[in-house]
Amino acid sequence: MSRTLNSTPAADGFWMPAEFEPHAGCWMLWPERPDNWREGAWPAQQAFVQVARAIARFEPVTVGASPAHFGAARSLLPEEIRVVELSHDDCWMRDVGPTFVVDARGAVRGVDWQFNAWGGLQGGLYFPWDQDDLVARKVLEIEGRDRYRAPIVNEGGAIHVDGEGTALVTEECLLNANRNPSLDRAQIEAHLRDYLGVSTIIWLGRGVFNDETDGHIDNLACFVRPGEVCLTWTDDRRDPQYAISMDAWERLHDARDARGRRLKVHKLPAPGPLFMTAAEARGIVPREGSKPRRAGERLAASYVNFYTANGGIVMPLLDARTDRAAAARLRRLFPGRRVVGVPAREILLGGGNIHCMTQQVPVAGLRRKRP
Amino acid sequence: MSRTLNSTPAADGFWMPAEFEPHAGCWMLWPERPDNWREGAWPAQQAFVQVARAIARFEPVTVGASPAHFGAARSLLPEEIRVVELSHDDCWMRDVGPTFVVDARGAVRGVDWQFNAWGGLQGGLYFPWDQDDLVARKVLEIEGRDRYRAPIVNEGGAIHVDGEGTALVTEECLLNANRNPSLDRAQIEAHLRDYLGVSTIIWLGRGVFNDETDGHIDNLACFVRPGEVCLTWTDDRRDPQYAISMDAWERLHDARDARGRRLKVHKLPAPGPLFMTAAEARGIVPREGSKPRRAGERLAASYVNFYTANGGIVMPLLDARTDRAAAARLRRLFPGRRVVGVPAREILLGGGNIHCMTQQVPVAGLRRKRP
Repeated sequence: MSRTLNSTPAADGFWMPAEFEPHAGCWMLWPERPDNWREGAWPAQQAFVQVARAIARFEPVTVGASPAHFGAARSLLPEEIRVVELSHDDCWMRDVGPTFVVDARGAVRGVDWQFNAWGGLQGGLYFPWDQDDLVARKVLEIEGRDRYRAPIVNEGGAIHVDGEGTALVTEECLLNANRNPSLDRAQIEAHLRDYLGVSTIIWLGRGVFNDETDGHIDNLACFVRPGEVCLTWTDDRRDPQYAISMDAWERLHDARDARGRRLKVHKLPAPGPLFMTAAEARGIVPREGSKPRRAGERLAASYVNFYTANGGIVMPLLDARTDRAAAARLRRLFPGRRVVGVPAREILLGGGNIHCMTQQVPVAGLRRKRP
Repeated sequence: MSRTLNSTPAADGFWMPAEFEPHAGCWMLWPERPDNWREGAWPAQQAFVQVARAIARFEPVTVGASPAHFGAARSLLPEEIRVVELSHDDCWMRDVGPTFVVDARGAVRGVDWQFNAWGGLQGGLYFPWDQDDLVARKVLEIEGRDRYRAPIVNEGGAIHVDGEGTALVTEECLLNANRNPSLDRAQIEAHLRDYLGVSTIIWLGRGVFNDETDGHIDNLACFVRPGEVCLTWTDDRRDPQYAISMDAWERLHDARDARGRRLKVHKLPAPGPLFMTAAEARGIVPREGSKPRRAGERLAASYVNFYTANGGIVMPLLDARTDRAAAARLRRLFPGRRVVGVPAREILLGGGNIHCMTQQVPVAGLRRKRP
């Protein structure tokens, strides 16, 4: 049973736990649309299968597929991965799925943000997005968790939390006029406090250069544990990413989290820069109403876009020149976890990466300390 | 996780429990197609909501709806009923859903019969039926139960069991050339033994007069407990149903169940006879490839088509002249259960009734005696 509640998580004593806390499992969606995924989405599907397999080594995985693709998804995914029918407009479960919240007694509920395809009719990536906007509700029905329907447009990839009262967001996304034009910073903050159960919001400026989500935090920086943040980085001052990362570093350096701590910032050198090739662009079928993808475009590549599983880190492999160093860095950042790399260029070509395509479900029944 | 197993339930020590054993819940589907459900399926949807509500008084109910109808189904059904996306060609969960089987240690698995819309291209009710044939698999994915894909065409409404080794079926359906034309009676029996875990199969002849399923047992007769069967009945010798029920009565009278018992047969007087009115037929939108429904057609009305829930019986109300007597009869047959009647003519107009639209999930973790 999934009731829709009229209160807010904060009012009910709920908050969003950090991704590095224990999971019951992980949800994903199946890539299908030929205007975003080259060559009929076949190469992306192969990559998604590898990501799902990698996560399934650590925790149960469910993949949602549309009615037309259910059979193929079921055949291509191994049996230990659950496949359910779940229509969507594109496959970014992080952004269209629920954001789960917990309370001190171990109850689990879900926040269903309003979704407008990263900008609606002002720069959104496609039209329509009605099936995307139903995904969170459908996941909550299957999970049997009560639902908060948030009164703002937001995406799971636009927020990170430390589980101890702090949220990390970007101005580029959360204050973008194509999300909640009638709300100012203070009003957005109030909603984040209400729906994430946080007390402190750390604002970074812009997200990764040319990130079509309008600068989602989950491609730029994330908590690796309370008090420590990992930030995508480049030392190349001519790269437009340099100023973005430097500004983020400075803001993080000056920030205090909900417990009053200074943050330790770990730089994670970016791959590339990487660009879409002509061969890659050729396989994409343009469609009126969808953002075109063109050869030569800078890809918003970042190793920060990894998924933290139970006992594991599933990270994108993006560039043979930098993959090994990034994996080594993540191994040092997460000493208790096994770091697994999955070739992810095909996912990057579609506009996101491993974190964008996943959504964790926290373990229920766990007694937690209220932040 | 739902693995597909290459063995059979019988070989693995599994069998189908009786419907009157404890349930974990009940699955249904949402009526949608305008060539079967009059007036855009609206009246049928109202009736389905009432059935779902009635069952939900006794056990958890899940309703599957297609992507196009998910939102409406979710709005029309009360929140305590789970709604999931589940495409289908029509809404008869009994026939397209899995038949659940259990073992002595309380494990639960599902049998996924091959489905051909009650006769395929030789008298089936519509074409295509590919989404129907995926329903059982999708239910088993959500339930997380392993799956046997049976090598024969069959429907859940074509079988009843006593949970102690006996199955009840009709020749009209199971031996119909439009189901498994290459298999004879002995081969069908072997498959039923393998997939239902039964040792004794009691064959009745024809099902209810003009039943478009080719005489499903679940409209004609069912076990009310081991050793006792309830049979739809008419005393009117001019009614073609008379000979059918009399033949069934004689076969039941002569039969022995798996434990060697004679059966006690309870007659449940039929409503009607009932016929489709011109007003009712007018609201159906004919479609090439689907069985036409015409004014004046005899409806296959039977009170035997009830659902046995945990502590309850949800029965169809079909005829003001006979409803009360039927309810009283069922109350006497099920002294431990509360009998709830739901107006069901709209369901009958679509070709089935409450038992046809439901599928029970047995409780897991229950130690049971192997039949």
